This record gives sequence, C-alpha cells and structure tokens, in this order.
Amino acid sequence: MSHLLSERAAKRTVSSFISGDSVPPPEGYKPHPNTLPLHWGMPNEGFFPVDSIELNIIDYPFQKSLALPVTNASLESLQPTLSASLNESRLTNGHSATTLSVDDSLRKLKINKENSKVVISKYSDNKYIDLAHGLQYSENAGLPQLLKFTEDFIHRVHKPAYEEWSTIITSGAGDGLNKAAEVLLDDGDIILVEEFTFTPFLKNIEQAGGIAVPIKMDLSTEPDKSQGIDLGYLTDLLENWDERIPEYKGKKPKALYTIPTGQNPTGLTQTLEFRKKIYALAEKYDFAIIEDDPYGYLTLPPYQKPQGFVKLDELLTIDEYLKNHLTPSYVTIDTSGRVIRVETFSKLFAPGLRLGFVVAHKKFIKAIDNYAAVVTRQPSGLAQIVLQNTIEQKFGGVDGFINWFLKLRVSYIHRRNVLLNQIYESKAYKDKLIEVIDPRAGMFASLVINFPPGTNVYEKIFLLNWKFSHYGVGVVPGFNLAVDKGNKNVNFFRLTYAPSPNDDLIIEAANRLTNAVSDFFAKNLEF
Amino acid sequence: MSHLLSERAAKRTVSSFISGDSVPPPEGYKPHPNTLPLHWGMPNEGFFPVDSIELNIIDYPFQKSLALPVTNASLESLQPTLSASLNESRLTNGHSATTLSVDDSLRKLKINKENSKVVISKYSDNKYIDLAHGLQYSENAGLPQLLKFTEDFIHRVHKPAYEEWSTIITSGAGDGLNKAAEVLLDDGDIILVEEFTFTPFLKNIEQAGGIAVPIKMDLSTEPDKSQGIDLGYLTDLLENWDERIPEYKGKKPKALYTIPTGQNPTGLTQTLEFRKKIYALAEKYDFAIIEDDPYGYLTLPPYQKPQGFVKLDELLTIDEYLKNHLTPSYVTIDTSGRVIRVETFSKLFAPGLRLGFVVAHKKFIKAIDNYAAVVTRQPSGLAQIVLQNTIEQKFGGVDGFINWFLKLRVSYIHRRNVLLNQIYESKAYKDKLIEVIDPRAGMFASLVINFPPGTNVYEKIFLLNWKFSHYGVGVVPGFNLAVDKGNKNVNFFRLTYAPSPNDDLIIEAANRLTNAVSDFFAKNLEF
Repeated sequence: MSHLLSERAAKRTVSSFISGDSVPPPEGYKPHPNTLPLHWGMPNEGFFPVDSIELNIIDYPFQKSLALPVTNASLESLQPTLSASLNESRLTNGHSATTLSVDDSLRKLKINKENSKVVISKYSDNKYIDLAHGLQYSENAGLPQLLKFTEDFIHRVHKPAYEEWSTIITSGAGDGLNKAAEVLLDDGDIILVEEFTFTPFLKNIEQAGGIAVPIKMDLSTEPDKSQGIDLGYLTDLLENWDERIPEYKGKKPKALYTIPTGQNPTGLTQTLEFRKKIYALAEKYDFAIIEDDPYGYLTLPPYQKPQGFVKLDELLTIDEYLKNHLTPSYVTIDTSGRVIRVETFSKLFAPGLRLGFVVAHKKFIKAIDNYAAVVTRQPSGLAQIVLQNTIEQKFGGVDGFINWFLKLRVSYIHRRNVLLNQIYESKAYKDKLIEVIDPRAGMFASLVINFPPGTNVYEKIFLLNWKFSHYGVGVVPGFNLAVDKGNKNVNFFRLTYAPSPNDDLIIEAANRLTNAVSDFFAKNLEF
Repeated sequence: MSHLLSERAAKRTVSSFISGDSVPPPEGYKPHPNTLPLHWGMPNEGFFPVDSIELNIIDYPFQKSLALPVTNASLESLQPTLSASLNESRLTNGHSATTLSVDDSLRKLKINKENSKVVISKYSDNKYIDLAHGLQYSENAGLPQLLKFTEDFIHRVHKPAYEEWSTIITSGAGDGLNKAAEVLLDDGDIILVEEFTFTPFLKNIEQAGGIAVPIKMDLSTEPDKSQGIDLGYLTDLLENWDERIPEYKGKKPKALYTIPTGQNPTGLTQTLEFRKKIYALAEKYDFAIIEDDPYGYLTLPPYQKPQGFVKLDELLTIDEYLKNHLTPSYVTIDTSGRVIRVETFSKLFAPGLRLGFVVAHKKFIKAIDNYAAVVTRQPSGLAQIVLQNTIEQKFGGVDGFINWFLKLRVSYIHRRNVLLNQIYESKAYKDKLIEVIDPRAGMFASLVINFPPGTNVYEKIFLLNWKFSHYGVGVVPGFNLAVDKGNKNVNFFRLTYAPSPNDDLIIEAANRLTNAVSDFFAKNLEF
C-alpha cells in the first residue's frame, strides 16, 4: 500500500546527529561493552525533582456515590452543583446530599481501599515504566512497555487480517488523526468524509492540502435501520465519479474518513456486514480508510427503562463482550493493509493524558514515526508512566483494562437510558415533535426535530438553539458538524450524556430541552 | 510585526463546532445562569480512574548521595554502574559503594523528608491545577495556572521591552521550535542559522518550506573571546546579500535562528552587548529572531579546580544570579516584538514531561495557538498538573523555581569542572593536542583537536571518533551538527557532562577520551 502514502511522507527521512553519517569503522575496531556517555544531551535522572509517584486509583467510575441515591454523582462536586440547580428545578429523587455516606457506598461495592495504590519509583524492573525512563527523553513511537500493551490489546480485541501491522503511540486522537491525514494526503488529494462528522478533522485535511468530499448519510431513527453512510449513494458516486462530481473529474479519492461506531455526531454504528461492503469498495477503487474510533468500546444495548441505580450486574464477561457486543474494527477485515485505525485513551482513561495510538500497516506507522520525529516528537512520558503503571499494576494488563472500560460502559448505558427515558416521557415526544436516534455505542444521541413540511429548517434550528440556551441547556446543532455548509436542511441536534455530574442533572437537562421544544412549537416556531 | 507571519499562519482561523456560526439571538433571549451540558463531548471527571496523586519531591538534585564520597551519584543505580566500570577502570577515589549511608547524607543537607510530599486531589481551589481540570480536555494554550506562572516567571527573569507580549505552553522545545518556524516561514523563505546548530531544527525549517542559510561562527578557545556568531561576517552578508549569495538574490532573510546561551554544540554564549548588535541588524534588515534557550539558566562561572564534593555554598541568591550571572534574553531588548523566545522545562524539570513555552508578541502567540488548534492540540494536562503543583506547592512559585534550578546549576558547575579538570591534567592536553571551549552556560563543552596543518580533517575526525568508540566513550563530532555538510574542515567534538551517573564516570570518560587522542597522535593519526 506504499502507493497510498503522500509524496511528502514517502520522501521524509530521519537522521540522528549522534550517530551521524560517518566513515565505516577501520580494521581492528571493536565496539566497547560499556560506553560512557559524553554524547547524549540529556540530563541524568538525578536532576529530576520527582523521586516517586503514588496514584490512588478507583475500582469503579463514580464509586464514591455509585451505590448512593444520587447515582453517577461526582461526590466532591455534588453539593454545590445540586444546590445551584435546586434553586431552579425540581429534583427527581427528593433526597438530600447531606445524608450520603461514602463509606456505605464503598462497603456495598466491596472495595478495599488498601488496593487502590499504584506506586511508581525512579527505578524498577522492565515490566513497569519507571521515572528514570519515563521522565527522560524517549522514543517518538512511545515507550516500549506501553507500545507492547497497545499491540497486545489490539491482538485481543481487533486482530488485523494481515501480519505486517504495528502500533504507534500518539498524543491523543487529534494528533493521531492529523498524522493519518499527513501521511496520506498531498495537495489536491481527495478524501471522502461522512456528511456530518468530527469537523476539526477537516482542518487536518486542509493542513495536508487535501479536499474533503462529503458522503450522504442515512439518518433514520428506526432502530438499527441506519448505519450512517448511505451505501447506495457512495457506490453510485464511485461508479460515476466523473459525472457526479465534474469539478474533480479524473481525480479518484485517496481515502475515506469514517467514525464507524457511535458516529459523531449522529451516534450511528456500522455493522460488520456493512463494513465489509465499504471495504470492498475501498479495494475496488483503491482508497485508504481512516477509521476514527474514540469511544466505540463503549457499546450500548438498545434503550431500556433506567432504574434508580447503575446496574452493576450488567457487567459483561470479556468473552461475551468481544463475541456479542463489540463490532469488529475495519482492521479485522483489512487484508491489504489499507486501514489506518485511530484510537485514544481520552474516553477510556482521561483526555488530559493526551495519549492515544494508531494501528496500521508498518509502512504507514513508519511514515507517522518519521513525521513525529520532525513535528510532534514523543508523547508525554509522564502520561505514559501513569497510564502504563495503572493498567499493569492496578487493572492487570489487557483483560484488566477491558474490565475497567466494561465498568465505564455500564455507567454510560445508565446515563443514556436516563436521558432517553426523560425525553420519551416528555410531552414534546408524545406530541411527535421530536424523535431520537438511540445509539449502539459511544457518547452521542441525535435529537431529530419534526418540523412541518416547508419549514425553513436552517433558520428555525438556530432559533430553537437560542431557545435551548435561554432554557439553560447546551446542545450542538447538527449543522455545526456538517461538512457542506451549503446544506441548510439539517433538522437534528447532537446530545451527549457524558459530561453531566449526575443523573438528576441529565433529567433536568432533558426537561429543559423538551419543554423548550414544546414551547417553541406552541408559539408556531417562534421564540 | 504581522508582516513577518507566514501566509499560512496569517490566514489560519479557528472555529468551534460547539458555538458554530449561528444567527444572532432573538429579542427576549437571556443567557441562562446555569446551563446544563448536553453539548461538550467530554467525559465527566467521575469517569477518570485516577482519584489522587502524591508526588515525592527532592530538595536537591542527587540528594541521596550529594554529601557522600561519590558526588553526583544517582544512588539507586550507583552500585551496578560502578561495578560494571570497576571491571575495567581505576576509580579515582577508591571508596566503596557499600559504605554509603543515605540517612547521613540527608542529615548533612538538613532535609526533612516530611516536607517532600505534593498532594494533588480531584478537586481543589483554583490555585493548584486539580485532577478534574488537568485530566480533562483543556486549552491548547495551556492550563491557566501554568500559563500564569510562565508569565510571572518571564516578568521576573527576562522582562520583554514592550507591553503586548504573551506566553503559550508547548509540548517541549521541539514543539515550540516547530511552531516558531511554522508561523514565520513560507515556501522559499530564508532563515539564517548558526553554521553549527541543533540540526533537528533544520527539519522544521524544511517542513515549513524554508531555506536555512548558515552564518559563520567564531570558535576561539580563548576565554570569553568568542560569542558564537561571527558578527563581521553576518554584517557583511546582510549588507552585500545579492553579491554574497547570488542564488538567493533579492530574497532577504525572514528570520535568524540562534541559541545564544551555552550554544549547541559549541557551548558559546553571547553577551548582552553582542545581542544588542545582532538585534540592531534585525531592526535594520527587518527579520525575526527565534531565540532557542533550553539550558541558558544553567549559567557557569569560569572553570575552577573541582573539590571532591558539590559546593552547596556556591548557591547564589536570586538577586545576585539575575544581576550578575544570567545574560538577559533577546526579549529584554526587543522593542519591536520581533523575537520568538523558545523555552523548555526539559532541562530544569524533566524532559519526559514534554512541556515548554514560548514568549513572543501576542500576534505570534495567537498564530501559534491557531496552529496548535489544528496540529498538536493541548499539551499533556497530566504533565501540567505535576509541573504546576510541584512548582507552587513544593518549590514555592517563581522564586522557588529559580532556587530549584540554582541547585541544578551548582551540580552542573561541579560536573563541568570535573570533566575539564581531567582533560586539563591529561597528557594529550599538556602535549597541546587538544583544547577546550570552557562554556559560560549549559551542558556542552567543545573539544578542539589541534591537527597538524594540511590534515584531511574530515577523514581524521571520523577515524578518531571510531577510536573514541573503541575506547568506550561517546562524543558527537561537530560535523554532525554542521548546517552545511560541504564544510569538511570541522575539528571539534561536542562533549556533555549532563547524562553521567556520577563524577567517577565523568573522570573515567575523560581519561578514555584523552588517552584515545594521545594514542591516535602517537600512531600518526592512524587507528
């Protein structure tokens, strides 16, 4: 697949001024077994002020309040947030924050606080990244221990269909996506993108000189009908490229950018069968696929009426999860090595680490490494220390990490159910003013507005957005995530249940949202 | 100075799909005092597995062994390293590692271990970055608390000569340098660089489309005579540009890249008077200055014969240091806002943080921020948490940070003295086969080889480099850091005293180095 590399990436080389380009060794030369360093300009680790780090790691997300009446509450911030909202909204459960007991909660969850510590020393054996290595300059590709983890992890969850794949650590998905664009696109190269997408990536395309061509999506709200990309549209477009897009006549697309699982902004997920059809098109028309998958591991069953508590008994076994819940990545059907899969630890650990990784053919990984050598350098070693030690010492490696995000998953399921339930029970929903796309993965659900035929959707969507803002709920108009700003017929909003501190505020947000809609329609779509 | 921005940087804009481009608010709209978030796609901090972090911070670099017979020894690694080298080398002090007592050392230094802890909680007041903010998505420019620190720090140590300056956090100096090149250089733009330089920056120039033109340096080994850039050469070049470089006729340089303090690789430092002359040229010929200063705070007095111990009584007061030791940055004489100063925490804290910052006119900072929004995104929040909390909680703010690196400075002075002393006492030096450039700052000293006139220097330098490698000491041939690979007359090596675990191994390295030279000359410059 080298022919898919951008010219820039293909010709980029790396060099080290330490080794340099020198004459060959003379006769009699023998490498010394213990070379003393006057060459590397790096401070000895004795100059680093941090002597050791201790982390306190939780067993469950939101564990301090998980078993308490206010579920999914971030306890330390619960009191002020609740107070603020109490002034203006009815709280659904009517409980008082002052009666909460963290110890009760931990006891119910059978959590032993003694086991929460992760200790990172200046020196340790090779299994864990120590401070002497993690706080030092290190490989642009990532520290070996974390790199090994990502390989083992991918081998377990999304084993590529060919042998010559590899991984590289990035500074988060934003960095990974930019690198993917950079190694594929030259000036004037065309890349296909879903018509609604993670629009910051359009800037990466522009930065690399590429041109984004939007692909129509099917946004049906019927359960499991829509899978995002409109396959018929895409097939026809590729078959009749020169007629369909005369301005790009003769220029075939170099790549497709897709968020196949819990798509941003729509929340849609492609089935494996669907992916096989898209992949067949990639083979036929010889384009690369950039698979962006920031939260696809957070799979969601169809909506169910929520209970007052997060249902910890919904925790899946890993085998069940991998077999029946997780949709296999494009890399699992990638026989040619044309898929660049971009992952991140932002949603599965924390965004502030700024760590992610890319899975792709070794040629692409090498090209990304060469770009990193010039532009980004190594990802933060400190972040790698904390991530790798937590995964290995506390979670317990690959399967432990999966178990951790299966716990996240249960909290996301609960939050999604709470949000959708409140919408489904609203007057606006019962009046058929709105519909929802119930997501199969991730953090986003789309709220579709059933405007009467003939409505100036663009105008009314933004007026309704002001209404939401006036009512005190923040949402994202789908239009803001449209590739083609000429598309003025976008009748949905992106909703997320990820940031809310607790259930009550999701419920209150949904109430504000649906009341605003009812009010808006009652006033004949005026403010 | 907007005219110095690259076209790319000038036209780059940022946008947020959260706010988007919407219609203006309707009459009657009122911003809500407590908007509930269904918009931002960020996980609530309750999803982060890290509940708290404790750091153990040392008071002095190498403190566990600082007062012990083996000075500057990284104690935990002392035993195996010494053993390895004992097999083959005489140790100068003849002491045994087994007699060391860490407690003795700490007692001598009056260090109270109780005060070493820095605790970082999920929530705290605004003074320290807490985990809820630091582990979350955050500003590309850096978290406000750390940003504020860099402003206060620069105000204290290198106050710019104009008002409209600002700072931005970067992912280390490599990132800062790339950003500086990116916002200044378009295709075909010329940038002046010292003829020996930090060559990875040449790749950043290339990436931005720029062309590096080397400036001759004065590499005198007479104390305090040379200041790096050959001012006469530069003045003549600028005055007679079209004649001196006919291939770039009509193209004036857009920028100068310089490492003015403890230059890499030469170790040379420009005085303030010298900087004023260079700055006057920048004003006259209207070019920007990229000032790269990764270790300039580590000022070094002239060589003195070392004692067995690091002399802690050499710790300067901050006022004395700022008044008589630290050479003011170019920004302190920058009346026009044409200097982009690139700093890093790599040498003053730890490279693995991947944190640094840039000081420049707000127009340049804004352009760098816009580039970050597309390519790099935010620096690691976790690294910012650890750095900011250590500086504020343990060191005690700006002056505390200065006090910390004044301690580093004393260790570097000691190491530099140990290295140079061993070279000065060598047979090779006494035979006048070698000279040394004694640095006034930083981590590098140049070893100059006095080849007989008529020597093929290029050939012999690399043969001698193989000799060093054979003897078991790693150094960097100056040629490897030359901009112009056509320059085959480079007769020096870059030495650094930064990475060695202890004094003894610096001494042993110097012995191997000088013995190799003597041997090489004894064999008539053959292996």
